[in-house]
Amino acid sequence: MSQPLINKFVVVGIGLIGGSLATGLKQRGACAEVIGVARKPETCVEAVERGVVDRAYTSLSEVASELRQGDVVFISVPTLSVTSVLQEIKECISSEVTITDGASVKGSVLRAAEQVFGEVPPQLVLGHPIAGSEKSGVTAANPNLYENHRVILTPASTTDAYHLGLTTDMWNAVGAEVLTMSVEEHDEVLGATSHLPHVIAYSLVDTLAQDIHNPNIFRYAAGGFRDFTRIASSDPVMWHDIMRANKTAILQSMDLFIDNLSRLRAGIEQEDSDYLLKVFSRAKEARDEFTLMLAQRQAPSSKD
Amino acid sequence: MSQPLINKFVVVGIGLIGGSLATGLKQRGACAEVIGVARKPETCVEAVERGVVDRAYTSLSEVASELRQGDVVFISVPTLSVTSVLQEIKECISSEVTITDGASVKGSVLRAAEQVFGEVPPQLVLGHPIAGSEKSGVTAANPNLYENHRVILTPASTTDAYHLGLTTDMWNAVGAEVLTMSVEEHDEVLGATSHLPHVIAYSLVDTLAQDIHNPNIFRYAAGGFRDFTRIASSDPVMWHDIMRANKTAILQSMDLFIDNLSRLRAGIEQEDSDYLLKVFSRAKEARDEFTLMLAQRQAPSSKD
Repeated sequence: MSQPLINKFVVVGIGLIGGSLATGLKQRGACAEVIGVARKPETCVEAVERGVVDRAYTSLSEVASELRQGDVVFISVPTLSVTSVLQEIKECISSEVTITDGASVKGSVLRAAEQVFGEVPPQLVLGHPIAGSEKSGVTAANPNLYENHRVILTPASTTDAYHLGLTTDMWNAVGAEVLTMSVEEHDEVLGATSHLPHVIAYSLVDTLAQDIHNPNIFRYAAGGFRDFTRIASSDPVMWHDIMRANKTAILQSMDLFIDNLSRLRAGIEQEDSDYLLKVFSRAKEARDEFTLMLAQRQAPSSKD
Repeated sequence: MSQPLINKFVVVGIGLIGGSLATGLKQRGACAEVIGVARKPETCVEAVERGVVDRAYTSLSEVASELRQGDVVFISVPTLSVTSVLQEIKECISSEVTITDGASVKGSVLRAAEQVFGEVPPQLVLGHPIAGSEKSGVTAANPNLYENHRVILTPASTTDAYHLGLTTDMWNAVGAEVLTMSVEEHDEVLGATSHLPHVIAYSLVDTLAQDIHNPNIFRYAAGGFRDFTRIASSDPVMWHDIMRANKTAILQSMDLFIDNLSRLRAGIEQEDSDYLLKVFSRAKEARDEFTLMLAQRQAPSSKD
C-alpha cells in the first residue's frame, strides 16, 4: 500500500471550508488521519459523529506534541481569529509541520504572522480556496467542494519550497487548481470580484427588507432575484471579519462602483439612451466572455 | 375532440417571452393555430422552421381580417414599441379579439393605451409574466418557461370580464399562477425586486470591466460571481426600454439602495462591528425567509 500524501491532517475550525477539505482528503486517501480542533465541544462531537474527522479536541495544544514533518495544520477559522491560532502554533507546534490557511483576506494574515513570528516562518504557506456556499458550519462539509475550483497561494520570500510543495499537492489531491500571486494582488482582485459583490448583495437585500415599505416586495420577487441574493446568505461573522481585514481594497472597489452606479442613475434620469445602451451592451459582452472563459476552464461534468 | 381554449393565437414579437408562450400553448393543445408577427423576415422564417409558430408575417395587418372572438393577440415587443402595436390594433383588429401583453412595465403601456384608444378598451388585458432568462430571441423559446411562475395581470375598470377570464385561462394553461394588482403597485414592486437588481448587476459588471484596471479581474472571479451577474446578460434593448418606462420607480429604488450602501460603506470605514453584523444578519434572515417562501410555493420538480 502506498504512503498517503499527508500523515496527520489537523483542521482548526471545523466549518464549511475546513470540514470540506478534511473529508475531501480522507475520502481520496490523501491523509492517514484527520484531527479536528474546534472551540465548542458540541462541534467536536458532531464532527466525529458525521465522520468529518477521526478525533477532535477543543484546543490545538492537546494534539501539538504528536505532530512532525509530513503533518499539516490547516487554519480555517474566521479571518480575524487567525492571529490567536498563529500565537498558539508558535508556542506548541514543531517548525517541521506544514501550516497553511484558508482565510479570504491575505494581507491581514500576513500582518498577523509578522506580528507573532517577526516574519513569515518557512513552514507557513498562506492560501485561499476560491470556493464557498451559502451554507456554513460542519453540517455543510462537502468532500467535492474544491473539485475544479481555484486555490490562490501567496507564498512569502521566506516560505520554504517543501511546505509550498506539500500545500500545492494537498489542494491538487482534492481536485483544485493552484495558482500563486502576491498578497497585494490577491486582496485587490478578491476585493473587486468577491467582497464587493457580497457587500452589494447584502445591501440590496437589506434595502428591500428595511427601506422599501411594501409587504409584498418579497412575495412577488422573481426567481432571478434568488440567484442574485444567494450570496447574501453566507455566514455574517465571516463577512464581518472580511470587511475589517480587507477594508482598504473593499472601500476602493465600493467607491468605483458607487461612481459607476451614480453615472447610470444620471443616465436613467436624463433618459440618455446612448449611454444606457452602451453600458448594458458592454456589460453583456463582458459577462458573456466571462461565461465562455469559465466554460473552457471547467470539466463538462463539474458543478460550481 | 374537445375545442381548444383559444382558436388563433397571434404573437407579435417572436422572442423569448412570446415564443415561449406560443410553443407552450401549442404543445399543450391550448390553441388551434399559432401565428407569428415579426418585423424581420428572417425571424419569421426561423420561427416557422423551428416550429415555434405555424405561419408568420411581417405585419399584423396581414392577419387582422381573419381574427374574431376566441382569438388572442399577445404583444411581446420591447416595452417602448408597444404604442405602435396598439395603434395598429386599433386600426385593423376587431373589438371582439382578446388583446394582452407581456411588457415588464405596466404604467407606460397603460398611458400608451389611453393615448391610442382614449381609455383602456374592454378587450385589452395588461399583464406581465414574472419569468425570463439571460437568453433572448426566438432560439430561446421554451414551452415550459412559465411552469410554476407567476403572472401579474393589471386589469383596468374598463376591462371586460370575458377577456380577463380568457387571458387568465391562457396563462393557467402553460402552468403559470395568475395574480392581479394595480398598475402602480406592479411597477413599484417590480422596480424594487427586478429592475433595481438588474441595474445593480449591469453596473457591477461594468465597474469590473471598465473601472478596475486589473486584467486579471475576470480571470480570478469565482463561480458565485457568475450567479450574481447572470442577469447582466439579458437583452440590452429590453432593459433600456424598462429604464425609460419605469424611470420614477427605478430612481426611487436606486436612491434607497445608494443610501443603504453608503451607510454600509461608512460602517466598514469606521469598523463599526455592531452595524456590520446587524446588516449582514438581517439580510441573511430576510433571504432565508424568501428562499423558504419560494420552496413552499413551487412544486418539488420545478426549475426556476
